[in-house]
Amino acid sequence: MTNGAQSLMKTLVDAGIEVCFSNPGTSEMHFVSALDDEPKMRAVLGLFEGVVTGAADGYARMADKPAVTLLHLGCGLGNGLANLHNARKGKVPVVNIVGDHATYHVKYDAQLQSDIETVARNVSPGFCRTATSTETLGQDVAEAIAAARAKPGQVTTLILPADVSWGEGGVAVEPLSPPTPEAADEATLEAIATAVSSGQKTAILLGGHALREPTILAAAKIAAHKGVTLLAETFPTRMERGAGLPYIERIAYLAELAMVQLSDIKNLILVDAKAPVSFFAYPDKKSYLVPDSCQVHTLAAPDQDALASLNKLVTAVGADRAQPKLQPKKQPVSPVGKLTAEKVCKAVGHLLPDNAILIDEGITSTLMLAAMTAGAPRHDLLTLTGGAIGQGLPNAVGAAIACPERPVYALIGDGTAMYTIQALWTMAREQLNVTSIIFNNAAYSVLNIELDRVGAKDSGDKAKSQLDLTGPPINFAEIAHSMGVHGVRVQTAEDMVKALEYAQSQPGPHLIEAIIPESLNKTKRKILPWLLRSMPSLPLSVSKALKKKLAP
Amino acid sequence: MTNGAQSLMKTLVDAGIEVCFSNPGTSEMHFVSALDDEPKMRAVLGLFEGVVTGAADGYARMADKPAVTLLHLGCGLGNGLANLHNARKGKVPVVNIVGDHATYHVKYDAQLQSDIETVARNVSPGFCRTATSTETLGQDVAEAIAAARAKPGQVTTLILPADVSWGEGGVAVEPLSPPTPEAADEATLEAIATAVSSGQKTAILLGGHALREPTILAAAKIAAHKGVTLLAETFPTRMERGAGLPYIERIAYLAELAMVQLSDIKNLILVDAKAPVSFFAYPDKKSYLVPDSCQVHTLAAPDQDALASLNKLVTAVGADRAQPKLQPKKQPVSPVGKLTAEKVCKAVGHLLPDNAILIDEGITSTLMLAAMTAGAPRHDLLTLTGGAIGQGLPNAVGAAIACPERPVYALIGDGTAMYTIQALWTMAREQLNVTSIIFNNAAYSVLNIELDRVGAKDSGDKAKSQLDLTGPPINFAEIAHSMGVHGVRVQTAEDMVKALEYAQSQPGPHLIEAIIPESLNKTKRKILPWLLRSMPSLPLSVSKALKKKLAP
Repeated sequence: MTNGAQSLMKTLVDAGIEVCFSNPGTSEMHFVSALDDEPKMRAVLGLFEGVVTGAADGYARMADKPAVTLLHLGCGLGNGLANLHNARKGKVPVVNIVGDHATYHVKYDAQLQSDIETVARNVSPGFCRTATSTETLGQDVAEAIAAARAKPGQVTTLILPADVSWGEGGVAVEPLSPPTPEAADEATLEAIATAVSSGQKTAILLGGHALREPTILAAAKIAAHKGVTLLAETFPTRMERGAGLPYIERIAYLAELAMVQLSDIKNLILVDAKAPVSFFAYPDKKSYLVPDSCQVHTLAAPDQDALASLNKLVTAVGADRAQPKLQPKKQPVSPVGKLTAEKVCKAVGHLLPDNAILIDEGITSTLMLAAMTAGAPRHDLLTLTGGAIGQGLPNAVGAAIACPERPVYALIGDGTAMYTIQALWTMAREQLNVTSIIFNNAAYSVLNIELDRVGAKDSGDKAKSQLDLTGPPINFAEIAHSMGVHGVRVQTAEDMVKALEYAQSQPGPHLIEAIIPESLNKTKRKILPWLLRSMPSLPLSVSKALKKKLAP
Repeated sequence: MTNGAQSLMKTLVDAGIEVCFSNPGTSEMHFVSALDDEPKMRAVLGLFEGVVTGAADGYARMADKPAVTLLHLGCGLGNGLANLHNARKGKVPVVNIVGDHATYHVKYDAQLQSDIETVARNVSPGFCRTATSTETLGQDVAEAIAAARAKPGQVTTLILPADVSWGEGGVAVEPLSPPTPEAADEATLEAIATAVSSGQKTAILLGGHALREPTILAAAKIAAHKGVTLLAETFPTRMERGAGLPYIERIAYLAELAMVQLSDIKNLILVDAKAPVSFFAYPDKKSYLVPDSCQVHTLAAPDQDALASLNKLVTAVGADRAQPKLQPKKQPVSPVGKLTAEKVCKAVGHLLPDNAILIDEGITSTLMLAAMTAGAPRHDLLTLTGGAIGQGLPNAVGAAIACPERPVYALIGDGTAMYTIQALWTMAREQLNVTSIIFNNAAYSVLNIELDRVGAKDSGDKAKSQLDLTGPPINFAEIAHSMGVHGVRVQTAEDMVKALEYAQSQPGPHLIEAIIPESLNKTKRKILPWLLRSMPSLPLSVSKALKKKLAP
């Protein structure tokens, strides 16, 4: 006989799902027991559900297929919600199995009883289902997998009552085929080809799955042939970049900068991306960042075939034989002296090995990372797609499990790191090749900036205390050691370089805690000087225009 | 002019709300700025929202009034959901302020945009509202506070769009009066008085707010006069106990034990409690634990006045002059030898000072805590009301802020502690008098037990690996130190006692990591021997009956 959990496990494995990130409880014990029936399923324990869901996100970004998560009722799902939000915003496929009480137990309103579906709808609006019988469970999970994998990718949630899991009569179901995405139609192509050839300033904005090599190369042919600008969305799910690939400028996080980048563009062509909007709203500032004088064209929506659409456009504008401009290899020299956030990025750019995975959740501290690694050996960049901090360390866990041969570097802010610090334990347990770099500036720096940006009045001591992490200072190297990860604290650029070299020489996880000064002058907390300082990360033309606009 | 945030702050303070537990983001900056306008509002930062909400829960349990939480959009609420679930299940008043994007920004679907209300409904089914204008915000918050405080207490959520917060024209609103709860009516009283006087075996089950001194004393008068048994719910929100108060046996967590406790009771009288049900469902085991032959009577539902109802019953059964039996002072001797979970509980019982607050989230490790502290100096006990682990350390933060003069002891399992370990940082920042005792047995012990209880087949290595925390072992003393908390690791009973004495001699937070053996024999993982070992925690009559039933 096959119980529900066993049929579920077989359906997952038959669909090619190989990894289960889990934090189980009593209601999931039959699923846990079924793990040993399937040698093809790897189980990875996280000590907190935010680690589990963030790992599933990072895994799917790099493996291009979903992992399954195993979560314990509504509370387990709640603990994992923020990183599922990031996956949802990044259009990353994740299949959640959320254990629930036995169907007949629900009416007793026991301690852990809650309305799981209402929570699940926040991150799985497209597929959220409660399994109702052991016999149909296999079909439910096959549909959940297919829905997760269908372009553009989504988070699906299947709620699994304990009696459906332990009941006998489970039937494994063969994988369902997702629908084939379509390319842009002729009318759209013609309109966009006309815009590209118009002589007006035009930009192609790439996002989603369109930031991989083939799509980037196609877009770069058009850029080489027609002089259009290539842009990438602000927070890519996964972006291939570095020496040998075309350089693409990302839209800046700060609306003030993004509006400068977009200011004289007359045609903006979207490829698996949306028109840029401000991350937050600010009093008396625009939310929609595209200038009124710019026309927006959608070449490929996220559920369409971006590569086929771009290839058609290449032909339509006669760029088939164009040679895309490729980024030459160029790494910064080794930094020296007192450590700063910029020098940490420089050290990473200086030493980044070939084929690395770079995870950027440094918030204010990694402003210079893009510039410092633009000419580094080819790598993948994963970023904070949904703005819910605590993604980077778990993402690193998942990426390292998807790509065991590739070194992973996770650059993380201190405030951010504390959200899902338990990820370090899983790195140690699984001996993952992850180097976590924590920028310890003892502050929520971005909020110091935002306090000024939202126009809140000059803040007093209580307000400031909500943004400072100085009392007590956190020792991240010690935290790493407490969970079995090699940890070191550095305060000079030379030591930073040495620590990176050491991490590269030894397999398994490492943590480097970089002690750096706070980004903002605490007495002023003004955005303008910070903006001006940040401009070296932008192309010269943009920073020139910006200086003119912002100079007092 | 008064902006929305300022009117909100004044409405909170006018209603007597004095503490804001916060983890703010950009959309909450005007609220943060308004903190400095209200000297009566204390702001306490948590580095993760699970700390914030768990602290608000612990605070309200001890202060008997709500704190306010400040959370950042749907993801911040998600991160805090599990401890709000615990508060909801414990009927604890909490007022959540969840910042949201400006109303006009929602349509742009920016990174952090999500359906906050769908998440909020999970924990705030009774009051979940999105503020729509600055002018009516004060009224919204006054209603949220009143709803939270109305008996029996609930979690309320007010979603605050950024433009409603920063808009001008805010109006503070005077506190609204919650409705007065009613006592049991005459017909109910008469029926219950008849049952109490029937000579049949009868028990009074106290829960919710009925586990405070006045209610316990009233129930104990009836017990002394009529020979009824006093029982407490399994996981009390707050229970006053110790020397000088009547001893009340708690319903056991394990259904197998609870059914023995309830087996020959013919009348079960509920006072702010529900009829016992199993924590989880198990194949071929009953969910509802009250025997078929037992009649259940509700003297006071959670929204009624439990004390007035009990006092009426005292009079109706003629027990006004009865002398309740009080627990004499009796503390265990100092434990010696190799450390075990039981000896940790013994050391706590041996040294518990007067007027302590005891937080029990030790799961399998604190099975003996009730017995070891029954005759200790009077104290309050807070437990895991909703089953969502990660409550204890944040609860300790809140309890210590509510009662700065009282020592707080938080007994926490290792797996549990890792969920909200960031609470240690807030303990250090606020220099709270909390001694955290972590039982490090390197396992999710309760799941080892549950794997057997749910009838999952003999588990293999992968299943077992999901329940073990051995690789790598976690060093909790080191984690404590990394966040500025004095930490020590102990392996003998003598060192445990010394560490407790040291913690009592020095103000501020301490963490004692108790290295103990795993509860279960790992090769057997059988429930029976564990059950038999656990019986000393039960009254002799119960353990005798149990031995007879369970002996092979």
